Amino acid sequence: MKSRQGNDKINLVVVGSIGLDDIETPAVARRCILGGSVSYACAAASFFTRTGMVGVVGHDFPTRFRATFRKFHIDQQGLQSARGRTFRWSGVYERNLNNRRTLSTDLNVFANFAPDLPPAYCASPFLFLANIAPDLQLRVLSQMYALRFVAADTMDLWIKTTRPALLKVIRKVDMLLINDSEARELTGKEHLVQAARHVLTMGPRYVIIKKGEHGSLLFSKHGLALVPAYPVENVQDPTGAGDAFAGGLMGVLACAHRITPLTVRRAMVYGSMVASFTVEAFSLEKLQAIRRDDIETRVRQFLQMIRC
Amino acid sequence: MKSRQGNDKINLVVVGSIGLDDIETPAVARRCILGGSVSYACAAASFFTRTGMVGVVGHDFPTRFRATFRKFHIDQQGLQSARGRTFRWSGVYERNLNNRRTLSTDLNVFANFAPDLPPAYCASPFLFLANIAPDLQLRVLSQMYALRFVAADTMDLWIKTTRPALLKVIRKVDMLLINDSEARELTGKEHLVQAARHVLTMGPRYVIIKKGEHGSLLFSKHGLALVPAYPVENVQDPTGAGDAFAGGLMGVLACAHRITPLTVRRAMVYGSMVASFTVEAFSLEKLQAIRRDDIETRVRQFLQMIRC
Repeated sequence: MKSRQGNDKINLVVVGSIGLDDIETPAVARRCILGGSVSYACAAASFFTRTGMVGVVGHDFPTRFRATFRKFHIDQQGLQSARGRTFRWSGVYERNLNNRRTLSTDLNVFANFAPDLPPAYCASPFLFLANIAPDLQLRVLSQMYALRFVAADTMDLWIKTTRPALLKVIRKVDMLLINDSEARELTGKEHLVQAARHVLTMGPRYVIIKKGEHGSLLFSKHGLALVPAYPVENVQDPTGAGDAFAGGLMGVLACAHRITPLTVRRAMVYGSMVASFTVEAFSLEKLQAIRRDDIETRVRQFLQMIRC
Repeated sequence: MKSRQGNDKINLVVVGSIGLDDIETPAVARRCILGGSVSYACAAASFFTRTGMVGVVGHDFPTRFRATFRKFHIDQQGLQSARGRTFRWSGVYERNLNNRRTLSTDLNVFANFAPDLPPAYCASPFLFLANIAPDLQLRVLSQMYALRFVAADTMDLWIKTTRPALLKVIRKVDMLLINDSEARELTGKEHLVQAARHVLTMGPRYVIIKKGEHGSLLFSKHGLALVPAYPVENVQDPTGAGDAFAGGLMGVLACAHRITPLTVRRAMVYGSMVASFTVEAFSLEKLQAIRRDDIETRVRQFLQMIRC
């Protein structure tokens, strides 16, 4: 797999939220840390390919977080700055870190966000529509003219409130990432395999069902693939794991000559390993502390673990 | 792998419960069906090796269930018949079949069960101590004189009520099978990897953490292995899945020339596939309808699914 060096053309564009998070776990409470789907996905992808971010922040967005993005070599041309406060999210994790309760969500500058892509982004061959309103996902999609592969994520809110627009997104993408309960909600099918098969009929060639600490499933017309999660010994904060998974996956795919079910599986393993690092600390702190080599080492360990 | 034919010496002994179950799922309610840990484990093991059952039934135990055991070529010399009624369990599964509620447990003849093994069993090289009181597990263990490999299962009840005897069992076995919540309860450690590591210090060379529909984990001093579950499309009744998993696993191990972490992994895959068939119908109905070839086919499908 090629490293990010050498080519400065934007190879992957990611659109989604950038936020300031207040997070409480049984062990620690942290305030005003860097969060949002774009932050996690771009940081994860940046280990593998040149990535540009599309999002909006407010006047209160700390300069040091822009520096964090720079450290990951994330292109920030698509990062708008708007009047008002940055998107904020606060949540609490319970004892075993599996259950999360949202305390508050303040859209702030996100309420009026209308992404317009810089020219350098419009020619990107890869696009990841991280979790934001489907209308914004469609707006970004319509500005891209050289796409090879598009993946989208979503959440229960959009399934409930903006279903027609979401279905339009799903029809237009190559891959949908969705968690298990959302897949059930989207399709009305209780069983995961049936739900995923149903999503395949809605448009995408690939459907990935995310099961958090239990790994992920890939569905395509070529069949089903299972990628268990790496068993992280010391989870600090699960926030952003799904976004890091998707970002890592897309970063790896963006380096592939051909996209086949097998390259997607491999990319899922990489995404899953990046996610496993992500949850070992808050925000992007662990991803800042590791290098590409650490990911490769963990991928090798993982492949050992699933060898039969 | 050798098939069960040709050698009539008992190669694997299984001790545990034999019961009549009343089971209600969202779709169906079934009364007085064949259940119990020994029934599921022996049926699963019988695809691979000559298996003998140790347990007790009452005067009300239907003759047709003895015929069912015969169809699986399970040796019944160790099956005692006692005055009184057979062990009965009744439970209800909720909507997605993940949550089970026990309605009643009537020990009946099990209350005074004291297993004495037929001579042909005492020389068996493999032993699976399915879920029963640790004292009974120890009583069986003490009668065996040619053991190569012993595995034990348990449940939360024994962790709470007979911990010293259970710890004695754990010290004496080669492998402990335990589900995720039980591992946490046994060790007081919230994180699964830490809990499993702790169990390894209590005696067994191998610790298998069962996560139901999310697969299983193997821990040994050689490291960790992940075996995701086969994604069953149409689960009818999850009862006995864990016992079938363990029985299939032990049946395959009982055919191995050497037991290594890799043979255990392979055996876990076989156990997991037998379990996946088990849940496709009530009681032993699906296992009665399949042949060894069907298991081999599913193993091949599964290995395709986890190929990276």
